[in-house]
Amino acid sequence: MHSEFELITRFFTPDPPGAEAGVTLGVGDDCTLLAPTAGQRLAVSVDTSVAGTHFPEEAPAVAVGHRALAVSLSDLAAMGARARWCLMSLTLPAADDGPWLGEFARGFHELCDATGTALVGGDVTRGELAIGVTVMGEVPPEQALTRSGARPGDLLAVTGSLGGGAGGLALWQQGERDTGHPLLTRYLHPLPRLEAGLALRGLASAAIDISDGLLADLGHILDCSGVGAELVPEALPLAEGLTAALGEERALAAGLHGGDDYELLVALPPERLDEARERLAAFGLPLTQVGRVAEAPGVRGVAAGAERGWQHFQGGGVP
Amino acid sequence: MHSEFELITRFFTPDPPGAEAGVTLGVGDDCTLLAPTAGQRLAVSVDTSVAGTHFPEEAPAVAVGHRALAVSLSDLAAMGARARWCLMSLTLPAADDGPWLGEFARGFHELCDATGTALVGGDVTRGELAIGVTVMGEVPPEQALTRSGARPGDLLAVTGSLGGGAGGLALWQQGERDTGHPLLTRYLHPLPRLEAGLALRGLASAAIDISDGLLADLGHILDCSGVGAELVPEALPLAEGLTAALGEERALAAGLHGGDDYELLVALPPERLDEARERLAAFGLPLTQVGRVAEAPGVRGVAAGAERGWQHFQGGGVP
Repeated sequence: MHSEFELITRFFTPDPPGAEAGVTLGVGDDCTLLAPTAGQRLAVSVDTSVAGTHFPEEAPAVAVGHRALAVSLSDLAAMGARARWCLMSLTLPAADDGPWLGEFARGFHELCDATGTALVGGDVTRGELAIGVTVMGEVPPEQALTRSGARPGDLLAVTGSLGGGAGGLALWQQGERDTGHPLLTRYLHPLPRLEAGLALRGLASAAIDISDGLLADLGHILDCSGVGAELVPEALPLAEGLTAALGEERALAAGLHGGDDYELLVALPPERLDEARERLAAFGLPLTQVGRVAEAPGVRGVAAGAERGWQHFQGGGVP
Repeated sequence: MHSEFELITRFFTPDPPGAEAGVTLGVGDDCTLLAPTAGQRLAVSVDTSVAGTHFPEEAPAVAVGHRALAVSLSDLAAMGARARWCLMSLTLPAADDGPWLGEFARGFHELCDATGTALVGGDVTRGELAIGVTVMGEVPPEQALTRSGARPGDLLAVTGSLGGGAGGLALWQQGERDTGHPLLTRYLHPLPRLEAGLALRGLASAAIDISDGLLADLGHILDCSGVGAELVPEALPLAEGLTAALGEERALAAGLHGGDDYELLVALPPERLDEARERLAAFGLPLTQVGRVAEAPGVRGVAAGAERGWQHFQGGGVP
């Protein structure tokens, strides 16, 4: 379609292909040609964000662009991969929504720049607003952080803070629109923990990014690794201002179940915790122990039924 | 979301990772890990098919699955790349549409198998029916078939036949539902010309796949190469039965403008035509000269206004 080409050239023309970016032929041909680094594994993932399902339809365009890329890059972070390239599939309802698209593109490109990710292709189609982002990164074989390596005795630790994304969404749904509010910033502009993923290579025995909530994503590590866990809910590093905003009970529920934080949850042998903390401290990111891997399946330490304390965003009104 | 995992495991669990497929870690972790071939370029492309925009909403599910992958693979074919991997983003309206999904998956997987493409990841979300497919292939540097290499004096040639996709769509829109009809088959089950793309390495100076119609896609080659062309409309290899179904005038319009054929249009020096034909004849695919590249910009040989003879599918009723 003609307008596809116009939209792409207007807002999504990447920098000219350059050897430094590993791009030998960019947007404008049938395919983009990339030069992967010899000897590395190519880590790939795709995530689609649908308006009204994954983010509120009235969310600021700059945040929609940022988040769509952030959630995909977060998968690379969880793998310990270095971000290299991305492709974007944009489905847009309006025929030509220039101002919205400009802000959307700004959010997307700023995160590309901040993370060293080159936008190397994509398409624009007409339909309900949705953004699919395919990301590609690189990681040396044997250094990838999988979900299956957790062993009994490992500590469980999380980067940064928890519950802020869910808390920000709750505030948004209550009508808060000050996008400078720390919790709203947390929800609208999550930061994929790519540096942390790289720093934890060789230290973490398993990793996942927290997109669906600590307990849900911990469950994936436990399932893949064939182990169980003991959590210490009091140890959770809840986001600043979360308890004040939501009250103690909902704040804890947000930390356990809320999702949208895009922090990393890792398992690692106890003797490696100090070094992991030092490496992350170098760029100002805390690493907090929240539990321990156990042999017996299941999760202990969390009150039964606690998951009913939090309702995930499904589009629509206030939970 | 819980059902995402169920849907993926039910219909889209790929074969176990194996070195032969270059997959070292498959679906079920944060990323898939791939082992690209050393020394090759990675060719990547993404295409999104939206119901009602890119295909009729009531199209058979098996065809929807086939076509969604075929249109992306066609980009690899046009690059002369060997298909290796794909990721699929499926946006589904219904909560659990088992029978539809089973047929959709069959169409998708059968084309994966037929083309040696491994499905290595994806996601399933809720929303208006849309399928985004990212494909990855490999091609040696210097052998990629770009759009920019056409030179004055080159011949223009197309694989297979033209107008069949558009003719099939026209019949579908007129109420024809016999999916065994050759023109409907052509529209619903287009075959990406991957073998032809590989065979034309080293022979073609430029290539593109015909998705938007011969003239539109020729225009991309001319723009990228900075050349013009003389077309011989009488030489177009119109699909069998097309003239009988649509009449002479509309059949020619379908061949020139119809799109959805996914044949390859190539430019190549005259002295290479015979060898190119021989290589394609080995798997039964004709290669027909339809014109010549010229120095002067623009396209000659086609009556002005001929493009008004065909209306592209935009969703909705009979054109």
